[in-house]
Amino acid sequence: MSFAHPNEQIGILLRGVVDVVEREELLARLTRSADRNEPLTVMAGFDPSAPDLHLGHTVLLRKMRQFQELGHKVIFLIGDFTATVGDPSGHDGLHRQRPSLTSDQVEQFSRTYLQQVSRILDPGNTRVEHNSSWLKDLPLSNLLSLASHIPVKRLASWHEPQTYDHLCVDRFLYPLLQAYDSIHLKVDIQIGGQDQVQNLLVVRELMAAAGQEPQCVLVTQLLEGTDATLCEGKFVGRKMSKTFDNTIGITESPEKIQSKVLALNDALIWRYFELLTDCSMPEISAFKMDVEAGKRSMQSVKEYLAQDLIRMYHS
Amino acid sequence: MSFAHPNEQIGILLRGVVDVVEREELLARLTRSADRNEPLTVMAGFDPSAPDLHLGHTVLLRKMRQFQELGHKVIFLIGDFTATVGDPSGHDGLHRQRPSLTSDQVEQFSRTYLQQVSRILDPGNTRVEHNSSWLKDLPLSNLLSLASHIPVKRLASWHEPQTYDHLCVDRFLYPLLQAYDSIHLKVDIQIGGQDQVQNLLVVRELMAAAGQEPQCVLVTQLLEGTDATLCEGKFVGRKMSKTFDNTIGITESPEKIQSKVLALNDALIWRYFELLTDCSMPEISAFKMDVEAGKRSMQSVKEYLAQDLIRMYHS
Repeated sequence: MSFAHPNEQIGILLRGVVDVVEREELLARLTRSADRNEPLTVMAGFDPSAPDLHLGHTVLLRKMRQFQELGHKVIFLIGDFTATVGDPSGHDGLHRQRPSLTSDQVEQFSRTYLQQVSRILDPGNTRVEHNSSWLKDLPLSNLLSLASHIPVKRLASWHEPQTYDHLCVDRFLYPLLQAYDSIHLKVDIQIGGQDQVQNLLVVRELMAAAGQEPQCVLVTQLLEGTDATLCEGKFVGRKMSKTFDNTIGITESPEKIQSKVLALNDALIWRYFELLTDCSMPEISAFKMDVEAGKRSMQSVKEYLAQDLIRMYHS
Repeated sequence: MSFAHPNEQIGILLRGVVDVVEREELLARLTRSADRNEPLTVMAGFDPSAPDLHLGHTVLLRKMRQFQELGHKVIFLIGDFTATVGDPSGHDGLHRQRPSLTSDQVEQFSRTYLQQVSRILDPGNTRVEHNSSWLKDLPLSNLLSLASHIPVKRLASWHEPQTYDHLCVDRFLYPLLQAYDSIHLKVDIQIGGQDQVQNLLVVRELMAAAGQEPQCVLVTQLLEGTDATLCEGKFVGRKMSKTFDNTIGITESPEKIQSKVLALNDALIWRYFELLTDCSMPEISAFKMDVEAGKRSMQSVKEYLAQDLIRMYHS
């Protein structure tokens, strides 16, 4: 196969992306990939403790699919290692204060996850990895080496004083473990949500410290939940999350999806179109102008969005 | 063999000790040991990067010997693991920013160390351990479990703002590794200098978190260097350390030891007697009273001290 022109790829890949670190590096990688006719390695990590996918998750998964469609290699990384740390069957009677999952639970969650993910990603072209396979045997000396590159002060500055007061040292190790994932997998591009940006910048530095070319980072938008509204041109509301009970699950019934979409605040619709569907940006603009000009009802556009989502996840 | 009465043991063991955590626990352990006729496991850790022993080191080593003489098991722990972390032969091209030692260097230093130590400890009764033997294969999950018990804030509070600004995450892992040493060796009593107290308190907590009885901690005095003086009843001066070039090495020639002792500030002499010799406390008091009453010259007492030290390390 041959790859599309890097500028054409960039056009597709930057839709719904709030930040790229660094854009020039991304272009350089895509150019090199096209020149050598070699795919890039693109990775995103997922927490196995939340196996029911909702539309918020699909923003990132759809970005992965775009990379697949452009011919790149996509790794779906299940972060099972930290989820199972402190399994009470461990050595020395050590135990975690926070609840954690057993290996069996993680295995079961991973299966559910992958079943749902296969509605978005091309399963035959998706490499699934569990980070326990390299982290459980990671020599301590490697971790100490990584740790010696990251100032404590920097990690501390990410936290509000109230949170910081209760923070334990393990939390300062997670960014290092994430870095090791990328080092181990020799990742070219990692995709993450806005809540991951600080971690992913540390990962870049540690890859450089390990003598690797630092991965590019694509930061996708967080999708607003169904309870979001627009106030003075800005969205007011929280991200879509089970915690806030404002999700649309991809395994929910067509009727449920339809009714939830119809109840959305009008202003959210264009954003949902951009982040969740294959409608081109010109098509979305045309819809919007039609509604503003009174040529189309908002109701009909919402129905169109609902049908599009139902078709994607129920066919 | 049978053990001396716990109170008698305490009398010997607390000489030159500035703090015990906790004194009641220490008494309880000694009592249990005597009742069951089982020795206690006593440990002290040593950095393999400073192999030339001076009198400052002997304060702690002599305390270990006292435990040996009382029938307990003594472990001389060589902290070779952290000294060799970041060996450039490691994986992934990762390297430490600080200089570190090769395994060969550590091995050579350890030999020199043990040769010198055998002038103080009973070599046949001293168990020598290298912490690399358990730390190099310590599963990461165990480290994360330990880390989840220690607040970042607490470790941060140990450092002055200027130091804190440059501190990297690896420094927050060292107390956890120390804890793992004690957990692995099932230590009853650890002996350390005053600069180790904060670390050793963390070790106690982590042993408890791991379901073990926390070790007792005996904190020995830091010996003032040869340049210390007395000012308004307080010692002014730094601890004996190679860095400050104020040491008396145990392998120095008898002439050198003699001249350095004779040049000491008078006020230091009683402290050196207490911490460095087998003279009983009543004997030392008698010397002091004799000098104050003009019955003995300070010079002759210094000569006595010098001869005592020379006899200990050159016979």
